Amino acid sequence: MNPVPRQDEVLTQPHRLEKDLLGPLAVPANAYYGVQTQRAVENFALTGVPLSHFPKMIIGLAMVKKAAASANTQLGLLEEKRNMAIQYACDRLINGDFHDQFVVDMIQGGAGTSTNMNANEVIANIGLEFLGHAKGAYQYLHPNNDVNMSQSTNDAYPTAIRVGLQLSHAELVDSLALLRDSFARKRDEFQDVIKMGRTQLQDAVPMTMGQEFGAYATTLGEDIDRIASLFDLLREVNLGGTAIGTGINADPDYAALAVKELSGVCGHEMRLAQDLIEATSDMGAFVLFSGMTKRLAIKLSKICNDLRLLSSGPRTGFNEINLPAQQPGSSIMPGKVNPVIPEAVNQVAYQVIGNDLAITMAAENGQLQLNVMEPLIAYKILESMRLLRRAMDMLRERCIDGITANRERCRELVANSIGLITALNPYIGYDNATRIAKEALNSGRSVLDLVLEDGLLTAAELDEFLKPENMINPRPMRIRERIV
Amino acid sequence: MNPVPRQDEVLTQPHRLEKDLLGPLAVPANAYYGVQTQRAVENFALTGVPLSHFPKMIIGLAMVKKAAASANTQLGLLEEKRNMAIQYACDRLINGDFHDQFVVDMIQGGAGTSTNMNANEVIANIGLEFLGHAKGAYQYLHPNNDVNMSQSTNDAYPTAIRVGLQLSHAELVDSLALLRDSFARKRDEFQDVIKMGRTQLQDAVPMTMGQEFGAYATTLGEDIDRIASLFDLLREVNLGGTAIGTGINADPDYAALAVKELSGVCGHEMRLAQDLIEATSDMGAFVLFSGMTKRLAIKLSKICNDLRLLSSGPRTGFNEINLPAQQPGSSIMPGKVNPVIPEAVNQVAYQVIGNDLAITMAAENGQLQLNVMEPLIAYKILESMRLLRRAMDMLRERCIDGITANRERCRELVANSIGLITALNPYIGYDNATRIAKEALNSGRSVLDLVLEDGLLTAAELDEFLKPENMINPRPMRIRERIV
Amino acid sequence: MNPVPRQDEVLTQPHRLEKDLLGPLAVPANAYYGVQTQRAVENFALTGVPLSHFPKMIIGLAMVKKAAASANTQLGLLEEKRNMAIQYACDRLINGDFHDQFVVDMIQGGAGTSTNMNANEVIANIGLEFLGHAKGAYQYLHPNNDVNMSQSTNDAYPTAIRVGLQLSHAELVDSLALLRDSFARKRDEFQDVIKMGRTQLQDAVPMTMGQEFGAYATTLGEDIDRIASLFDLLREVNLGGTAIGTGINADPDYAALAVKELSGVCGHEMRLAQDLIEATSDMGAFVLFSGMTKRLAIKLSKICNDLRLLSSGPRTGFNEINLPAQQPGSSIMPGKVNPVIPEAVNQVAYQVIGNDLAITMAAENGQLQLNVMEPLIAYKILESMRLLRRAMDMLRERCIDGITANRERCRELVANSIGLITALNPYIGYDNATRIAKEALNSGRSVLDLVLEDGLLTAAELDEFLKPENMINPRPMRIRERIV
Amino acid sequence: MNPVPRQDEVLTQPHRLEKDLLGPLAVPANAYYGVQTQRAVENFALTGVPLSHFPKMIIGLAMVKKAAASANTQLGLLEEKRNMAIQYACDRLINGDFHDQFVVDMIQGGAGTSTNMNANEVIANIGLEFLGHAKGAYQYLHPNNDVNMSQSTNDAYPTAIRVGLQLSHAELVDSLALLRDSFARKRDEFQDVIKMGRTQLQDAVPMTMGQEFGAYATTLGEDIDRIASLFDLLREVNLGGTAIGTGINADPDYAALAVKELSGVCGHEMRLAQDLIEATSDMGAFVLFSGMTKRLAIKLSKICNDLRLLSSGPRTGFNEINLPAQQPGSSIMPGKVNPVIPEAVNQVAYQVIGNDLAITMAAENGQLQLNVMEPLIAYKILESMRLLRRAMDMLRERCIDGITANRERCRELVANSIGLITALNPYIGYDNATRIAKEALNSGRSVLDLVLEDGLLTAAELDEFLKPENMINPRPMRIRERIV
Repeated sequence: MNPVPRQDEVLTQPHRLEKDLLGPLAVPANAYYGVQTQRAVENFALTGVPLSHFPKMIIGLAMVKKAAASANTQLGLLEEKRNMAIQYACDRLINGDFHDQFVVDMIQGGAGTSTNMNANEVIANIGLEFLGHAKGAYQYLHPNNDVNMSQSTNDAYPTAIRVGLQLSHAELVDSLALLRDSFARKRDEFQDVIKMGRTQLQDAVPMTMGQEFGAYATTLGEDIDRIASLFDLLREVNLGGTAIGTGINADPDYAALAVKELSGVCGHEMRLAQDLIEATSDMGAFVLFSGMTKRLAIKLSKICNDLRLLSSGPRTGFNEINLPAQQPGSSIMPGKVNPVIPEAVNQVAYQVIGNDLAITMAAENGQLQLNVMEPLIAYKILESMRLLRRAMDMLRERCIDGITANRERCRELVANSIGLITALNPYIGYDNATRIAKEALNSGRSVLDLVLEDGLLTAAELDEFLKPENMINPRPMRIRERIV
Repeated sequence: MNPVPRQDEVLTQPHRLEKDLLGPLAVPANAYYGVQTQRAVENFALTGVPLSHFPKMIIGLAMVKKAAASANTQLGLLEEKRNMAIQYACDRLINGDFHDQFVVDMIQGGAGTSTNMNANEVIANIGLEFLGHAKGAYQYLHPNNDVNMSQSTNDAYPTAIRVGLQLSHAELVDSLALLRDSFARKRDEFQDVIKMGRTQLQDAVPMTMGQEFGAYATTLGEDIDRIASLFDLLREVNLGGTAIGTGINADPDYAALAVKELSGVCGHEMRLAQDLIEATSDMGAFVLFSGMTKRLAIKLSKICNDLRLLSSGPRTGFNEINLPAQQPGSSIMPGKVNPVIPEAVNQVAYQVIGNDLAITMAAENGQLQLNVMEPLIAYKILESMRLLRRAMDMLRERCIDGITANRERCRELVANSIGLITALNPYIGYDNATRIAKEALNSGRSVLDLVLEDGLLTAAELDEFLKPENMINPRPMRIRERIV
Repeated sequence: MNPVPRQDEVLTQPHRLEKDLLGPLAVPANAYYGVQTQRAVENFALTGVPLSHFPKMIIGLAMVKKAAASANTQLGLLEEKRNMAIQYACDRLINGDFHDQFVVDMIQGGAGTSTNMNANEVIANIGLEFLGHAKGAYQYLHPNNDVNMSQSTNDAYPTAIRVGLQLSHAELVDSLALLRDSFARKRDEFQDVIKMGRTQLQDAVPMTMGQEFGAYATTLGEDIDRIASLFDLLREVNLGGTAIGTGINADPDYAALAVKELSGVCGHEMRLAQDLIEATSDMGAFVLFSGMTKRLAIKLSKICNDLRLLSSGPRTGFNEINLPAQQPGSSIMPGKVNPVIPEAVNQVAYQVIGNDLAITMAAENGQLQLNVMEPLIAYKILESMRLLRRAMDMLRERCIDGITANRERCRELVANSIGLITALNPYIGYDNATRIAKEALNSGRSVLDLVLEDGLLTAAELDEFLKPENMINPRPMRIRERIV
Repeated sequence: MNPVPRQDEVLTQPHRLEKDLLGPLAVPANAYYGVQTQRAVENFALTGVPLSHFPKMIIGLAMVKKAAASANTQLGLLEEKRNMAIQYACDRLINGDFHDQFVVDMIQGGAGTSTNMNANEVIANIGLEFLGHAKGAYQYLHPNNDVNMSQSTNDAYPTAIRVGLQLSHAELVDSLALLRDSFARKRDEFQDVIKMGRTQLQDAVPMTMGQEFGAYATTLGEDIDRIASLFDLLREVNLGGTAIGTGINADPDYAALAVKELSGVCGHEMRLAQDLIEATSDMGAFVLFSGMTKRLAIKLSKICNDLRLLSSGPRTGFNEINLPAQQPGSSIMPGKVNPVIPEAVNQVAYQVIGNDLAITMAAENGQLQLNVMEPLIAYKILESMRLLRRAMDMLRERCIDGITANRERCRELVANSIGLITALNPYIGYDNATRIAKEALNSGRSVLDLVLEDGLLTAAELDEFLKPENMINPRPMRIRERIV
């Protein structure tokens, strides 16, 4: 995207003059945004990331403006013609049009006023063209008087963030469910691969690789439920609270009506917060939502750490699984293939965790009746959600779906493992088991050979006790010796 | 508490010898803990904070051991006499006795094995005395064989953490509810104090101080609900999964039975996780719980920031409220009294947020079938909960309950405020309002005087429009001019 | 920028086939990048931020490649013709050309291999055109064999990051120095504005506004020194260490020669690390550098918090200074102007602090001979430096330079302050001072009036003792009563 | 330590009455602390960690008070007899006596006033006894008038923190140097152990274990230098700035004199900050110092992650080194020994990183002329330094010193590694190398066998090229083929 031209550039191209409290300013003739947007663009040149990078948030703003216009019209405050123009403009935005007109930097002062005005101006100008007027002829449809009617940034903007998050939410859950399913398929595929479980990176006791991958599916599945439950938290909005939640300059019937209309536009129930003063300054829902993205990041990072461990080698590592090769690993080491996909997921996770900290600090530094750091909060949550979604799609398509197991290697590791002795514990006693374990460790020999040699068990008994189904599940203990 | 004596000190006092895999070690004769605890104490001299600082966690361990013994007895694995001794010992611990015997540092390697063994040893030795044996006569009641029967640290320890958090949870919610109630009383007390609301630290529009304090009550009330909902998350345990969740060396009936017994001991339902492999390594519940303490910390810190702002002055600040004086503020400035209580709460909040980061990193760095960083996670969550509880009690008793309002000052600030003009907006129009606002700002005069002088409204109209009830709530807009 | 076309899109447009270990792939005919870049672009679609957003890093890569080619040529390993082509291509990149060819996502797996190969391929193809060959005719100039000669990603990439940071460093220091100077000008401008100092938001003792703004200049000045001292840290590179720091497959003379050449290209001394094994995996310099950006962020945020406090009001806040208005503050509140510029700086600071956490986690999770999270570290440091630079420029131009003082208001606050009593302490004693302070607080009267009324001092004495120069500096105490 | 009795408990035991601005309060008769300490103890019951847990900080306070008394005496402000009593009391504290009298919680409101008054009161009462007076007879030696003369908490307390950190600093560097030396000894011991280096957990190229452990020594050695350089930062103090840095109520000659005296007491040069206003509120030095502890934590954690990887197994992991066994690893798995020491270090590192975040937030939230969060900053830095020191001692004594190498295993891994092919690259060409590498991977055979079988090199050539000294260092490349 071309950066928005600054004032001196605007003046050298076709433009129109608009004015606000601070005086007149030129705006490119073909721009749908207006003077306040232009001013904000010149004030805030920070991240280089404009709102247009987050379409769901634009749609959220349009839905709020659409619902507000409907409510105002029903209250007799907005004339029908102006309402129709606003409805048209909002529908175009909801449909994905004109998103390139949302040009203000995601980091901005003013608690979102610039973004709110960006929406008001774009909607007004789309509406003006719909009504057959020139852009900027605000006497026929005014960004503040009409589009922003009965609203303040302080209620419209946080409501739009919530709607934007709800819309992003579905995509996130979809990617998460697909990834969970991919792990579940591997769980089934690997259900008969016996391998050693490890605790503290030390050989522990046998399990199946299906159990291992099933645990990944389970842990991600739990997050689907949790994220879904947070959706509900986002239903609660402060629309109608206006400047500080007292509803000053809004009609007593407006808030309920606007939220009802918003429910209709969104296609799901939204609720008016009971305490609008509190709802105007409280960032609690965003803190929880960000905390949830952090939890997901932690889980994904832990899983990717595991995948990198399990595929380490091929000769000097664990080498239990193969990740599909995605690119040559080295310009200097022939044949090297690296776990680049999980590595990238780890880094995404760290960024998401860093974002959560930025959100934490922003939330903590709100003051009195408003949290002025809301733009950063919106930016970082939306960014985290998108990063997680893309990272999960990448992980699924380019890694998990193509993982294969080194069955023979896994089997050998079990057979050679000292950890097998744990399964014999009930039959040979803890003291014998400990002695055998030490001997195996010192001599490098197999615990099974040592058990046989010692005459502690017969080969037939060993076969029975070490059947996979006897090691990877509980089994009746009443007949055995005490475990020690 | 006296630090636990090291080996060379032990040897100079009455002691008994115990041994484990690494050989013999002397333990103080009167100690209820044993060799593995002694070893752990010498290995980990880090924080200086032993488990005895967190009694709820000790009780959690005792409840788990009690439930396990009951289950093992019912399965015919543990003889009744030994069971009775274990039941007795656990009851003593649940009752608060012998807590000084839990001496291992809260930060420890081994994924909690040392703490688990500390519990096993203390229970065994209390039980031995109950049975009439000397401490250390483990042939009659063994820390591993009997007390730890059918368990691994990897299922007993995380289950105990969950129980410990549940027990701490009630205290936290109690303190939170009391603080919420304190704010609610101030909401009622201040319901007729009209004051200026502020957004972005700039004068905004009027509100009541009751609304302001009511918002604090509301926001804390929301956390009561949220924290309560997390209680449920802690019900799910992996007891019976033993080493890695496969339940190796546990009876097939053990897990369900042990969890049922645990429910009985706790007095509320506990549930067996469906995927024990996942439940053994997953830290998700702790991450969410810590995230919840972080949210509460953020809210408390924001509230305390507000209180410090609102009480700033007395002459050069906002000076809307008075915090009760708790101590002289300065050795050099006579008469200075500082908001020391909210300041301390802010610092507690930062520590809690720092703890959440430590937990985040610990959770992310779990590997394969176990998260070995669990001791840090338990330590930091328990610490955060206690800090928050104490901070909330302090805040309530020593600050909120004694806050008084400077009603006259608040009224004057409203009367002088330029922000009043917003309420006149619908009657005099946005353009007039803006002009008056600028004039007031430049001249230092009152907007009301200027409105009267300009003949825009009569004194009677002004009185009507600026009635408190017309400014702090929505009001019918159908008759007015458009808001601009 | 248009996103890089994916394989199926490439195939529908003019393209050439290239191949690597994983087989053949189509690359757009006019692309200077090659197969490995194409593959990486398809693998990593995460942040949407390609390397081209960070020109200094591209220049860093070009400088490393240029130096390596020079060294290889002097060692007789690279023929002169190929060297000339590489020199030409690197100079073009250093000059700012072809930057749009650096298309790989900033977050990537592979420890930077994709970015390194992106550079190798672009340089090779620019060089090929220079030599009169078609793009892709690598037999004449090979990305690996020639451009990457004697290098591994593991030494070339971290060296390029260091050079890139050094180049970004100068810009950061420039912006910082300009901001410091802006505060210093305000220090001089406000040197005779007497105002109340505040500690803990409570009235303390008098000072000048010049002292206050001078402190901002001082604290930022300290960071100029500190950041400059970190420049030195970035001189130390591991070029020549190749894969893991052992220098395998590099000539014994190569490392020293390459670093000497790099010094020449950069225009300042670079140094070869003494322990190349350590230097290959150690992220310590980046951690410190990021920590320094965090310290600067903390300072800027603290200053902006102060500016927002000092400009709070205009009627219900401190109102000691006026920030220049940059945009209308509210669509609903006429005449409201908000401190949007400092608010945006606060948010930048939180993001920078969040970035530091991401870097911390990335640094901590390096393993064995390499830190594979380096791409995230480079990305986040470069982003933080750019954000800070832009934020400081914005703060200076749009806020600090235009701040004015409300001298009369400040003077009145001093005159009314109870804190004045501290200055009388030595003359009337701590007990009298405390009594007067309490009386003033309760009655709302001036401490000066009460002192006069009490006959403790004459008006002439008061005038003398409260001369500004006697309150804002130390003064001889030998004649006075004890301070209490 | 017994907790300090609360007021109702005090009243039931022998006590004396003291009073301050808020009125009278009972203090235990044998307490050296006084009314303000008693009040603070009752106000702040948060962490349960009193200042007495940090002796170095108490000594720092005593040194500041001692220096101030000397300066005041030289200025004729403090009579010699009182000075002698203060000198005596401070010397006792510096000598380690009476530390149990420092009972205020480390987290406290009031920016350290309570801790400063705790010191003033204890020093006064020790001094009173020295002078032959009863405790509490402050007319003969007053906590404020005499001990705190010419000081404010706002200069005395931060100066004491700096001195306290300097004193803790030496211990930290000592532990760090001992740890570095321990790694250096292992570097020498393992210098002939050839092993595979790993990047991205994949087999890379050979190195020696000496090189690997030498890198740990190097990276820690760099931190010794860095921490030492930060010592200098702590020399700069604001003593003499009194309340806000203007030096109000201090003699013009006091500041320089007090700092000179402090240098004498400390035994090293301390410096007066040039801008005392800035120095009173700026937390920059602490932020950097904490950042340095974070860097050390990151390095230690990375090293411990490596140690756990390298010792993973014994059968299913890397198994290249053996960590000394410190305690039995499992109650259920016989013979299991876990890397408990590095695991504990990891957790310490996470806590230190969490502490750094708490400090970051505290530093960012300073306001105007003072940072009121300083007590948390002091607490968390001191805690981090102590934790790191203890963790490093533990790591050295209980882990590093006892590490042994599995030489044969390492050798076999090299011999079997596909990564060996990289060393043959210059002799057989990159294409052949790649082909052989793939074949080896697919067949499970040795690359050396395949090279021989292919006739690419003779056995003699192989022997020559794969000599350790040819693989773990650069070697002349002029004769070889191009690397690919």
